Amino acid sequence: MPVVKPYSPSDLKRVINELAPMLGDRIHLSQATREQHGQGEDSYGCLAPDAVIYPFCNEEIAQIVSLCNQYSIPVIPFGAGSSVEGHLLAVQGGISLDLSEMNQVLEINPADMDCRVQAGVTREDLNMALRYDGLFFPVDPGANATIGGMTATQASGTNAVKYGTMREAVIGLTVITPEGEIIKTGTRARKSSAGYDLTQLMIGSEGTLGVITEIQLRLHPIPETIKAAICSFETVAAAVDTVINAMQMAVPLARIELLNALQMQACINYSKLEGFEAKPTLFMEFHGTADSVNEQVALIKDISHEFGGSEFTWAETTEERNELWKARHNAYLATLKLQRDCKVLTTDVCVPISALATSILQAEKDAEASGLQSTIVGHVGDGNFHLLIVFDPSKSEQIEAAKQLSEKVVMKALALGGTCTGEHGIGIGKKHYLALEHPTGLNMMKTIKKSIDPKNIMNPGKVIDL
Amino acid sequence: MPVVKPYSPSDLKRVINELAPMLGDRIHLSQATREQHGQGEDSYGCLAPDAVIYPFCNEEIAQIVSLCNQYSIPVIPFGAGSSVEGHLLAVQGGISLDLSEMNQVLEINPADMDCRVQAGVTREDLNMALRYDGLFFPVDPGANATIGGMTATQASGTNAVKYGTMREAVIGLTVITPEGEIIKTGTRARKSSAGYDLTQLMIGSEGTLGVITEIQLRLHPIPETIKAAICSFETVAAAVDTVINAMQMAVPLARIELLNALQMQACINYSKLEGFEAKPTLFMEFHGTADSVNEQVALIKDISHEFGGSEFTWAETTEERNELWKARHNAYLATLKLQRDCKVLTTDVCVPISALATSILQAEKDAEASGLQSTIVGHVGDGNFHLLIVFDPSKSEQIEAAKQLSEKVVMKALALGGTCTGEHGIGIGKKHYLALEHPTGLNMMKTIKKSIDPKNIMNPGKVIDL
Repeated sequence: MPVVKPYSPSDLKRVINELAPMLGDRIHLSQATREQHGQGEDSYGCLAPDAVIYPFCNEEIAQIVSLCNQYSIPVIPFGAGSSVEGHLLAVQGGISLDLSEMNQVLEINPADMDCRVQAGVTREDLNMALRYDGLFFPVDPGANATIGGMTATQASGTNAVKYGTMREAVIGLTVITPEGEIIKTGTRARKSSAGYDLTQLMIGSEGTLGVITEIQLRLHPIPETIKAAICSFETVAAAVDTVINAMQMAVPLARIELLNALQMQACINYSKLEGFEAKPTLFMEFHGTADSVNEQVALIKDISHEFGGSEFTWAETTEERNELWKARHNAYLATLKLQRDCKVLTTDVCVPISALATSILQAEKDAEASGLQSTIVGHVGDGNFHLLIVFDPSKSEQIEAAKQLSEKVVMKALALGGTCTGEHGIGIGKKHYLALEHPTGLNMMKTIKKSIDPKNIMNPGKVIDL
Repeated sequence: MPVVKPYSPSDLKRVINELAPMLGDRIHLSQATREQHGQGEDSYGCLAPDAVIYPFCNEEIAQIVSLCNQYSIPVIPFGAGSSVEGHLLAVQGGISLDLSEMNQVLEINPADMDCRVQAGVTREDLNMALRYDGLFFPVDPGANATIGGMTATQASGTNAVKYGTMREAVIGLTVITPEGEIIKTGTRARKSSAGYDLTQLMIGSEGTLGVITEIQLRLHPIPETIKAAICSFETVAAAVDTVINAMQMAVPLARIELLNALQMQACINYSKLEGFEAKPTLFMEFHGTADSVNEQVALIKDISHEFGGSEFTWAETTEERNELWKARHNAYLATLKLQRDCKVLTTDVCVPISALATSILQAEKDAEASGLQSTIVGHVGDGNFHLLIVFDPSKSEQIEAAKQLSEKVVMKALALGGTCTGEHGIGIGKKHYLALEHPTGLNMMKTIKKSIDPKNIMNPGKVIDL
């Protein structure tokens, strides 16, 4: 990918020199640090930024962004580096703004079940901080991502079927605009009709409209009763039909995750799971009062038996449950270990629940036809699943086949009324699909981007091209 | 209010003449029709538009808006005329676009629990259309508003505590932009990370960014068991404390509504409710399986007894339940009947649940000090309540006192971390509060408005002044 930088080396030097007195050794120019910040956990490779800065506060970021804006130097916000659509590549050079030093939980309001955190707080650290108040934050992408990054990519995870995505979790933000203004969006009220919803505009904007620095989050009480169960099926179709029926009967499942046979095999190997078979499997979790959980379990048992599901295997203790979900969260890493020296291309689509079986079965068929090993893992209660395509990066025909397979899955999802990304975002990898998904809306997205970031300094080359 | 029109009478005539062949007798110029369209159900009076047009389809609206844009003629979308913040006043003249002819339910997808409707469908008509599929649409502002109007004002109602507001209900839109483009936002997937969320931007934009013509809505299965109950208290504080405790214990109530003593008196009179006392009262509804409803009821009974609540009165049959909620929905009309020839100024605020008691008790105190009769009715599970201030419009000191009282309630809500409007919107009445609530965000809202509607033709003078 050719990098065309919209600024001169001397302008960059001027900006660095101007920032140096304020930031001191928090400006990093070493190649190792720059390369580490020029890539995510994906197969897009690396394009290193010119510098990495570790700000401490909103005011510093406002000054950095303001100065970068003056000299047209791109700013790329960086959380945990776990994004998977090339969000972090410095395609036009610029500065990576690493928010890991802004990692404070600013306030927890147990009575209102909300909290305010800095963008660099990770989801696991937040849940550690919340546990003494009997609260938890449910959104859980595979990686231990930062709350800032999860907001920017409109992340979700295994709990979204019950608790919603970042769109439902975030009630307010502090954002540094491309012109260096510090703005606060939202309030602490549960709902509002006051003006345009800037919070929602920023969620999923992938760093292209400003730097998200603080997030006000809705929390949930830790349920009185939690049970987790695993159930395997002879076919993917049977597992998916179980999910569709459960959703249509509005069973309030907290989690319902599908792993296809190969994904189960990979997880059994990687996480040393004992007592499981490499068959299409549902991982489920039930939250509620003891009675309500029993009622949910009885309903799901009925439905799964109808589709030939196995007896349920239970994760009884908190430790067993954590182990189970850790294995689920490590699905990507497990898939990476299926072949030596391979890479994994991940596709993330979401379809209406009625189209889920069609979509997944077609994906399995296309995967088989491609000749590449591919695992499927999905938040199927939302109609959301990922195809993880294993390929050898040294073989150009495999790279090409992986891309084609991914494209087939996305195009099928769009044809079924779905979206080209349920939770990973557009990044650099899905811009052409965004145009197909929103042929009439794209123009308005461009208008908004141009008006808020006229010099296109905020994570340029991502989401939309101007 | 002085009306300054950004167009000449001859330009208006030219536009009307140009539209006449397409629209025929669907262009109304009579004073009666124009005046009916220049006001809502509020105390802002009437400013009639120059014409009222009843379009049939997206393409007609695109042509109308495009032509109006060319000549800088304002366009004011009109649903049921039930808005309460002066949204419909033609403060800069222009054309009212009455969407009542676009009242088709376009599709219902029971398997995915969603539907697509034209903007002119009312919430009651939609629920009539849905009942054979065992589904319902929960958002219920007091009036039988249109889905288009409810989307534009980010409406909610009594069910929001369980089912959310329009922000959670709407998954996609068709919008006619100020330049006459027909754009489609969203998909039918339950979640998406694809680009900026134009759906969410349009929700609550109050007709200032485009004309909403079609809405894709999330639906819910009609619960297996529904129970409604009424419980009265000696003080408002006791009723509010019951609510706060229920919310903090995360009891999944479907509805929990507060009426203060005077509101109960008004409702008893207006709706001829029998067997109720004019005391602070909670109207509650429980949805779920039989077991789960019983569990919820037991929990709420415990909490309310702790705060001296009365025995529960039950609405046993569907008819009784409907009557009860009709009485609740008619709270505004009931308040209007408290005094002869009076008007009612409504204030709508929402605060964090922990601040609800402070906020409501202060409102009652301020109301008493004002010497004006005021009722309180609220979706208190959300922290949202309305103060309905009765005043004699012929007495300027009462008008002034009503405004001051309303201002006190709003300022208190803002001081408590709340919002100046939970569900009614900004309109013309709350622009100065929007600036206080979002001092740093207002500028970005203006930037967005200017970029999408550079000639300011879409419902000008509402939400923000440019």
